Amino acid sequence: MNQENPLLEAFKETEYQIPGHGKRDISVLKEALETIDGQLESDVYGNGKVIEDFQEKIAKYLGKESSVFFPSGTMAQQIALRIWCDQKSLQKVAYHPLCHLEIHEEDGLKKLHGIEPILLADKERVITLKDVVNMKEEISCLLLELPQREIGGQLPEYEELAAISNYCRDKGIKLHLDGARLFEILPFYQKTAEEICSLFDSVYVSFYKGIGGIAGAILAGPKDFTDESKVWKRRHGGDLISLYPYIISANYYFDQRVNKMEQYYEEAKELAALYNQCYCVKTVPLEPVSNMFHVYFTVPKNELEPILRELYNETGIGLTGSLREVSNSECYFEVNIGDQYTKIPSERLKKVFFSLDKRLRESRIQV
Amino acid sequence: MNQENPLLEAFKETEYQIPGHGKRDISVLKEALETIDGQLESDVYGNGKVIEDFQEKIAKYLGKESSVFFPSGTMAQQIALRIWCDQKSLQKVAYHPLCHLEIHEEDGLKKLHGIEPILLADKERVITLKDVVNMKEEISCLLLELPQREIGGQLPEYEELAAISNYCRDKGIKLHLDGARLFEILPFYQKTAEEICSLFDSVYVSFYKGIGGIAGAILAGPKDFTDESKVWKRRHGGDLISLYPYIISANYYFDQRVNKMEQYYEEAKELAALYNQCYCVKTVPLEPVSNMFHVYFTVPKNELEPILRELYNETGIGLTGSLREVSNSECYFEVNIGDQYTKIPSERLKKVFFSLDKRLRESRIQV
Repeated sequence: MNQENPLLEAFKETEYQIPGHGKRDISVLKEALETIDGQLESDVYGNGKVIEDFQEKIAKYLGKESSVFFPSGTMAQQIALRIWCDQKSLQKVAYHPLCHLEIHEEDGLKKLHGIEPILLADKERVITLKDVVNMKEEISCLLLELPQREIGGQLPEYEELAAISNYCRDKGIKLHLDGARLFEILPFYQKTAEEICSLFDSVYVSFYKGIGGIAGAILAGPKDFTDESKVWKRRHGGDLISLYPYIISANYYFDQRVNKMEQYYEEAKELAALYNQCYCVKTVPLEPVSNMFHVYFTVPKNELEPILRELYNETGIGLTGSLREVSNSECYFEVNIGDQYTKIPSERLKKVFFSLDKRLRESRIQV
Repeated sequence: MNQENPLLEAFKETEYQIPGHGKRDISVLKEALETIDGQLESDVYGNGKVIEDFQEKIAKYLGKESSVFFPSGTMAQQIALRIWCDQKSLQKVAYHPLCHLEIHEEDGLKKLHGIEPILLADKERVITLKDVVNMKEEISCLLLELPQREIGGQLPEYEELAAISNYCRDKGIKLHLDGARLFEILPFYQKTAEEICSLFDSVYVSFYKGIGGIAGAILAGPKDFTDESKVWKRRHGGDLISLYPYIISANYYFDQRVNKMEQYYEEAKELAALYNQCYCVKTVPLEPVSNMFHVYFTVPKNELEPILRELYNETGIGLTGSLREVSNSECYFEVNIGDQYTKIPSERLKKVFFSLDKRLRESRIQV
């Protein structure tokens, strides 16, 4: 057993895992490549059928004039903000305090691009029109992340979103969508990707969240914007001679899963309800608005870990591989529904939550 | 036929191609993956067996304390220079006027890192100790590219290299190796990679030149340097959730080809001699010092193209897919020897050069 991470180890050893599409192993790439003729030519520095076809397909899906494939969203989004800032000669943007650029990118936006971010809204909720209207400083671009991942994947109502979009257009503020999980929110809004993206000047989407590819992202927008993004892609070192391993897998799993987002969403609601029936457990959001949510336990992390490990051993079903501490008395984990969930026999699933509830009650009474 | 690029089209249709390892198609990745068990876990954001093992293997091969896998050399090298500049609080480096960072990266070094390059030496020759000693400005880091690709892959003598290294150490100038083709020069120097790299503080090597992988690079140096490079890798958007498609292929083709560099080097000398026997043709260098060289023709590009196309059709052997214009009366192309060369029957090879010589003489007499 991996002594460093016994929960992860116990999770991996279960027969069924609730979240995700399955193990991130080499077979994910192998499966995608099996569908492709070996004679297909590699893309070469952003050119060639394999990359151009995919860029055209996704641009069309998003309802944008043009799109560019990037190795990562980190690269794509910094570049999007840089282009909008340069266009207005104002190196200021606004985004949520828990935006990916603020907490996961080692300040790349500031250190590579000299762009200053204004943090909007509280950490616990999504950005509203009021936050944008009340902003005192002038900005070039507002970034909205839909859903707001770090708070369990919350969303504003569509009308709020449309109002923010209108306000930004009136004020000459570019609106950029961090759509890392755009596919996943369409069932909640009951809108097409094109309808959502029409509210934004530029859009980034990811292919290894709900889609389950290997890595990679698309940045979409007007042609002059995407043309400029290719220059910056080269500057960042992202214009690889060959990106096809990511493109082929993105395309393969996009076709396989883009129409399953409604199913994942319904399953997320079902699963969240099961969690919420357990003692000391609450999901955020209470009812998911996509395939994801967070599960909070008013139990110390070091007490919950052995409970979960025993649960996995008993039931053969894994809930999560890692817990994050909120405080001495609270911890949480993230759930993303993918292809795994539906494989679990429903009577076994009910048994897991019955047992989890029981174990939590017993542990709290002992305390 | 591809009307936009008839020479490339004619080249692709030949039975044998002289340069390279073969077509850059998907089968290159498929072949590498066939050797790998599908259950092997993906690397995850720079961690995991697949990336750590390879980094350790290459660090050892280069004789460096530590190494980091990067999606591209563009990213790795900008980051190396940034770290050395930050360490000295002096945003100035020196390199050759035809350095990759100067001519192929859209000024990423300047626009992302605010680093000013001093251009050393003339465009036609490699950097000498004298160039370094005579430099008036203070710099943090000197970058040497071995071999200097854009002038046909030229090299300084080893003693000159060692003298530059000593001088830089004395003066507190960090020395960085652009070793995109490091493996390829070892037979000329009759040194190990470790011996060459010991002259440098940091080293970048590429896995899709002589090695023939899909893409990817390694940056090697002291542990604190490579640790810092990981932070910048994330800032650049290069810390992908999975880099294994590049790592697996880099490792596979490294094992297959790293010991074939002597063969490629001998073949390059043989082939250059065949070119140099032709009318109006001269290679740079006259005798190659690695697997690469440039072939210059004192013939206008638009006159040479149909001659080559006819030659390919007649002999079934392709010399190059593209010509670059030097002036109205001169053009050139680059040759890199790989696995293809040795497959060509030698009598057919001789016939090609006999025919090329004849065609060039006839065409020049007509003029």
